[in-house]
Amino acid sequence: MADLLRTLRCRNEHRPGVFGRLATAIGSAGASLGDIRTVWTGPDHIVRDLDILLEDERVLEQVLEAVRQVDGITLLDVIDDVHELHIDGKLEVRATHPVRTLHDLRRVYTPGVAEVTRTIERDPDDSYLYTIRGKTVAIVTNGTRVLGLGNVGPLAALPVMEGKAALLHQFVGLSAFPLVLESRDPEILVQTVLQFANGFGAIQLEDIESPVCFEVERRLVEALEMPVLHDDQHGTAVAVLAAATVAMARAGLDLAASTIGVIGLGAAGTAIARMLGEACDRPVLGFDPGPEASARLRDQGGEPTGSMAELMARADLVVAVTGRANLIPASLVRRGQGILALTNPDPEIRPEDALAAGAAFAADGRSVNNLLGFPGILRAAIDTRSRRIDPSMYVAAARAIADKAGNNELVPNPLRRDVHRAVARAVADAAMKSGVARVRVSSDYQLDRPRRLPESDE
Amino acid sequence: MADLLRTLRCRNEHRPGVFGRLATAIGSAGASLGDIRTVWTGPDHIVRDLDILLEDERVLEQVLEAVRQVDGITLLDVIDDVHELHIDGKLEVRATHPVRTLHDLRRVYTPGVAEVTRTIERDPDDSYLYTIRGKTVAIVTNGTRVLGLGNVGPLAALPVMEGKAALLHQFVGLSAFPLVLESRDPEILVQTVLQFANGFGAIQLEDIESPVCFEVERRLVEALEMPVLHDDQHGTAVAVLAAATVAMARAGLDLAASTIGVIGLGAAGTAIARMLGEACDRPVLGFDPGPEASARLRDQGGEPTGSMAELMARADLVVAVTGRANLIPASLVRRGQGILALTNPDPEIRPEDALAAGAAFAADGRSVNNLLGFPGILRAAIDTRSRRIDPSMYVAAARAIADKAGNNELVPNPLRRDVHRAVARAVADAAMKSGVARVRVSSDYQLDRPRRLPESDE
Repeated sequence: MADLLRTLRCRNEHRPGVFGRLATAIGSAGASLGDIRTVWTGPDHIVRDLDILLEDERVLEQVLEAVRQVDGITLLDVIDDVHELHIDGKLEVRATHPVRTLHDLRRVYTPGVAEVTRTIERDPDDSYLYTIRGKTVAIVTNGTRVLGLGNVGPLAALPVMEGKAALLHQFVGLSAFPLVLESRDPEILVQTVLQFANGFGAIQLEDIESPVCFEVERRLVEALEMPVLHDDQHGTAVAVLAAATVAMARAGLDLAASTIGVIGLGAAGTAIARMLGEACDRPVLGFDPGPEASARLRDQGGEPTGSMAELMARADLVVAVTGRANLIPASLVRRGQGILALTNPDPEIRPEDALAAGAAFAADGRSVNNLLGFPGILRAAIDTRSRRIDPSMYVAAARAIADKAGNNELVPNPLRRDVHRAVARAVADAAMKSGVARVRVSSDYQLDRPRRLPESDE
Repeated sequence: MADLLRTLRCRNEHRPGVFGRLATAIGSAGASLGDIRTVWTGPDHIVRDLDILLEDERVLEQVLEAVRQVDGITLLDVIDDVHELHIDGKLEVRATHPVRTLHDLRRVYTPGVAEVTRTIERDPDDSYLYTIRGKTVAIVTNGTRVLGLGNVGPLAALPVMEGKAALLHQFVGLSAFPLVLESRDPEILVQTVLQFANGFGAIQLEDIESPVCFEVERRLVEALEMPVLHDDQHGTAVAVLAAATVAMARAGLDLAASTIGVIGLGAAGTAIARMLGEACDRPVLGFDPGPEASARLRDQGGEPTGSMAELMARADLVVAVTGRANLIPASLVRRGQGILALTNPDPEIRPEDALAAGAAFAADGRSVNNLLGFPGILRAAIDTRSRRIDPSMYVAAARAIADKAGNNELVPNPLRRDVHRAVARAVADAAMKSGVARVRVSSDYQLDRPRRLPESDE
């Protein structure tokens, strides 16, 4: 897995072919080239910063050695700006109203705040209006299944959660705060979240191992009258449904009339099977060696198959989320089949191999990013004060994402703010339509506008 | 209690005596006058905003009626800007590094963050450097003893906690996040805090009823290798010690050689007795009708007295924190005694009555604000990564506060940033001296400077 990011600052003499040789040297030594920025141009040379992605320190040594051999290149510096960037963390809790005078102090603190306290005591729902609750998400993890890293524990998971929170603020203006919990026991996790949940507008569960995540999510959804989103399940499933919608339409296939198969029924696979089941007319096929996973699929109306070969033989669209590279042999691919092999960085079958074996379309997981879904879903769910997240809200999010995909994209770029706005708009509509919304948002609901009072529905 | 803040916008004709009559009318009807701001001046009139503090809506009606009767005054508007100011709460969780490009995304999110995760996995102490932990405080309450309002519950306490967090950010640049917990059971409160504590650099307990607060604090201090501060106890005690130091010195009395008595041994009184005990040579006297309270005092080396009269007869300095107005009759005051009667808004004995009865000095609680202490204490305790808060750190904070008091002040204005800087500097020194600090801060430690790497001590 490409885990290291470094920036090479190189002095490049103005001679034909020098830069080409540099790029070749970097690639041949095992690194991928990222952004390139010009730092300085002189009369006879240019200084550039080249971002590189690579597997580990050993590869870095090889790359540096290779770069030093390139005629016309001087390696000036190797910059590790990732650690630098993380110093002090990636979030800041700021006061929205600076206290400069006693006048200010009396308003935000005592005695003024007593009046707001009494207002909330009379009607707890006013907490959505007069506290941070109405715009704030708790991001909860115990760090037992982080990225591709596995069980790193709560503290090492904190930078990842900070990143999620930063993205929520950046893309949809929510405040989100990470809470990293010690326990692996679902009972303790649930009881802990229930203790602090009411101070938040929504709960986002992240990177909790399976099957603990299922129980935690189910019990929190039952106990709380607020949105609870397990991102690894539903955020991922939304992005996959969007990608599947785009891919099937482009291949001239009808998703609703297709047989869908999911290989790998962990947290993501189970949620993908459920969500694709909502979008098609027949039971979703699923294959996983674990009996618990098959039982979960059956419980939600899906059909476990006896083997991966059987699933491959029957499904029109195959989604693989197994974490196992090269699992699917090309011999199992059917002509005209669609294949999304989503394990990163090395998929279950390479798209080029699947296409060569006759697939109608094939893609890997590089572009299917759950960052597409969760910000807009949470913003809309909070703004509508939804009692829970209805499945129709996820499907609406996936459709909104699919609609924004460009001609050569499976899904749109997750950094586009208009995508998140469209998701929030669609999800808010679905929340109101499904009846889980407790307040309505107006028809000109726009994320870019300042937050303001929702129209009351009660 | 003065709980309502309103602003009266008044048009005042340019005639002698009009404003005086307005001020008299407001005062006579039962409101206190706060800030006055000029909004507009015309050729024959002036429009002003007058802030008023009053008890309740009934008094407000009386004030409005009285203002309307004043010749030359037109009441233009009654503004409730407290609720307005609280809309959306008083905090915002912001991303410190905006994500604009894929380059940014790779650094704050995946794959870059994986490297930071691994760094913390190898050495958990690096979480202080590479996550928000090194600058972040959890403000924890269950809302069972809020301001003068009593048990309002967690949700209604949230605006108060937000105010504390806003002040921490404003005065010492810390990020603080409020967590409002449901339970009144100390066991559950402790277990909940232990679940999330490691994501923070310090725990600030607020507004938890006595005696639950004592058990919660004691057990958290035992279990956690980080600063745990119960503000209602120690923040208040620091401010009182500062005020007592200033008052005694000004009256020519020697605090260290004095007999000190504390009336009312709740959370604040118990901590005040303990802290004043550190500052004088003999056992602190205390009186409280509750047997538990007396036992707590005895446990910490104090001496319960059989009656308030006995305490008044023996103590050179009396501190009263009972919550009961007019509890101390003037007949009990000894000539030359110092009296701090701190119950707000109506003290145990009015300063003018105590002085008339022969007190050397007397003050009430209006200016003794725990806001003086907790920001600088927490900033220093986090920056030095203190294992706990040593009593000497509180005493150092009180001395720093006392040193900053002006000629006519008992304590300095809590809005002065130089006070908080001085507290942090003194507390950091005390932390290093006492041995609880795990890292050293440099001798030019300044809150205004950007945060940077502490010098490692391990």
